[in-house]
Amino acid sequence: MQDRITIKDVAERAGVSYQTVSKVLNHQAKVKPQTEARIRKAAEDLGYQPDQAASSLRSRRSRMIGYSGSPWPANQANPILDQFLQGMLHAAERAGYYLLCFPHHTGERQVEPYRQLIESRRVDGFVVSGVEYDDPRLQFLLDKGFPFVAFGRSNVGMRFSFVDVDGKAGMRKVVEHLVARGRRHIAALSWPDNSRVGQDRMAGYREAMQSAGIDINPDWIARGEGSVTFGHQVMQGWLALPSERRPEAVAAFNDGMAVGAMQAIQENRLAVGVDLAVTGFDDLPMTQYLTPPLTTVRLPVAEIGERVIKMLVNSLENNSAEVQHELVEPELVVRQSSTGEKASGD
Amino acid sequence: MQDRITIKDVAERAGVSYQTVSKVLNHQAKVKPQTEARIRKAAEDLGYQPDQAASSLRSRRSRMIGYSGSPWPANQANPILDQFLQGMLHAAERAGYYLLCFPHHTGERQVEPYRQLIESRRVDGFVVSGVEYDDPRLQFLLDKGFPFVAFGRSNVGMRFSFVDVDGKAGMRKVVEHLVARGRRHIAALSWPDNSRVGQDRMAGYREAMQSAGIDINPDWIARGEGSVTFGHQVMQGWLALPSERRPEAVAAFNDGMAVGAMQAIQENRLAVGVDLAVTGFDDLPMTQYLTPPLTTVRLPVAEIGERVIKMLVNSLENNSAEVQHELVEPELVVRQSSTGEKASGD
Repeated sequence: MQDRITIKDVAERAGVSYQTVSKVLNHQAKVKPQTEARIRKAAEDLGYQPDQAASSLRSRRSRMIGYSGSPWPANQANPILDQFLQGMLHAAERAGYYLLCFPHHTGERQVEPYRQLIESRRVDGFVVSGVEYDDPRLQFLLDKGFPFVAFGRSNVGMRFSFVDVDGKAGMRKVVEHLVARGRRHIAALSWPDNSRVGQDRMAGYREAMQSAGIDINPDWIARGEGSVTFGHQVMQGWLALPSERRPEAVAAFNDGMAVGAMQAIQENRLAVGVDLAVTGFDDLPMTQYLTPPLTTVRLPVAEIGERVIKMLVNSLENNSAEVQHELVEPELVVRQSSTGEKASGD
Repeated sequence: MQDRITIKDVAERAGVSYQTVSKVLNHQAKVKPQTEARIRKAAEDLGYQPDQAASSLRSRRSRMIGYSGSPWPANQANPILDQFLQGMLHAAERAGYYLLCFPHHTGERQVEPYRQLIESRRVDGFVVSGVEYDDPRLQFLLDKGFPFVAFGRSNVGMRFSFVDVDGKAGMRKVVEHLVARGRRHIAALSWPDNSRVGQDRMAGYREAMQSAGIDINPDWIARGEGSVTFGHQVMQGWLALPSERRPEAVAAFNDGMAVGAMQAIQENRLAVGVDLAVTGFDDLPMTQYLTPPLTTVRLPVAEIGERVIKMLVNSLENNSAEVQHELVEPELVVRQSSTGEKASGD
């Protein structure tokens, strides 16, 4: 007799692939209703218990939480990641857990450390940060039925617990602030379409523009890799337009692009904050000391670190697979790059 | 018969305290030669092996390295600490180790997590960062004979393995650069006397001034908590002096104080880099986008993270208690705050 029923047994009986079964059983149903019904029946017939492996692990706890120090947002050097880590470390200590840290890899290799840590029973659960669409780490952990909480969201169809910044609310605050300051021709320095964080912020831009009754000019939406160079280059292009086609404010989706735009404006002998308003996002250290100081959005990353750990520990201790979602609103930090006020001492 | 000879047995036989034996056996000899001789003889007579406990732990390796995410330098928010962590994580993975992270505490509580981790045999060794004079964590680990490598140095008499930034060399480069640019009246925005990192940088300042044959004016050395506010306030005081008593350059021991000094200079309608040169230390993100961009010293923290792990893993795998020291020279990054060149586009 077989030790226990696996997803593979269910797949064989239902005549579908392993992946399809995993998706259905983890509530990421995107299959036809008939297929789902067949899978559920096969699972029931066989007496399959999806949480078996996870439960057995949970009964001998390591009191360790795995965390890969992944760049966040993806592909950016990250001066605020330390705050996230500190928030997690203190919350974990209060709950009697340690953090087990391992490096983040890209491509095929990114799932491997998770597999090893589960197999060696070193951790009770994971915190996954730097989450993107179709994130293979999330898919892997869902397939395994292994506990985790994400810092960030992914595809709408994937059901898992997360804490995230409400980037939409943050960008809405930015645009509302610019509109209140009399700007209507507001351009966006955005991320590529496949960026989850970028899409979230873009939704806030669109919503706020719509609420203010402002038509969005597609020429004023630029999508790129989020660098200072990209912000600089795009801004140069906008400044080269005839004056009636130039934007009068630029909402950048991160501080780096905002800095590039500020440089281009100043090279054209225009005053940032007066001739053109510029805003950033993330509130990196030192942005308050730029000339002029940068209006931006502050992310409560230490608080998110704490919440992620609390959510994971709760689900571990209560042996609960209930999916939870928390969005934390970021704070608009108004400085002179968007207000036209003169720097102190001038 | 007793299981094994402990430090306490040696102390009893030599007629001294436990602490004294520990200090002598860990090569932090500050006792009288006769006392040391008596302790060494007692240890020999009893057949005491200082590494016994550590060896027995090492034979059942956890393949975990403990690391407290301590602020570095102490008491500063730290945007570059993430690079240090990343360097450690990748080096640890290559060597087949994981990092166990726990929070840093101050005062009495800071040793407790180390004790717990040793007793629960969760880690094979530690990386200790944010090291200061009389650091109780180092003293505790030396007393225990437990393997660790520090990022940073402490009291001269304490013998332990470390990797550190050669802050003296870094500050020497700064002063030599300023002298080469024709500045002689060079002030220092420094840290308090009890700061280990501050003392190191101060030694570089003094050496370079001496080599250039420049007398140091004690009025131009200010010691404070390393904040923007402190840099601003001190610079205001210097600018209020009669012109012949004002410094013509300011070497700040971190970027924050440099930013404060720049603000004070600009409020006095003087040009940073032209009227007064300003330099920082640490090369925080965004300092290249200040107006003018800040000349500073870049710390190779990712490399130090790798080296710390390699040194620790080597000593663990070779069961070696040999003390090793590595100093890594930081790099001077020359920008316009010290050169008087105009910003591009001006």
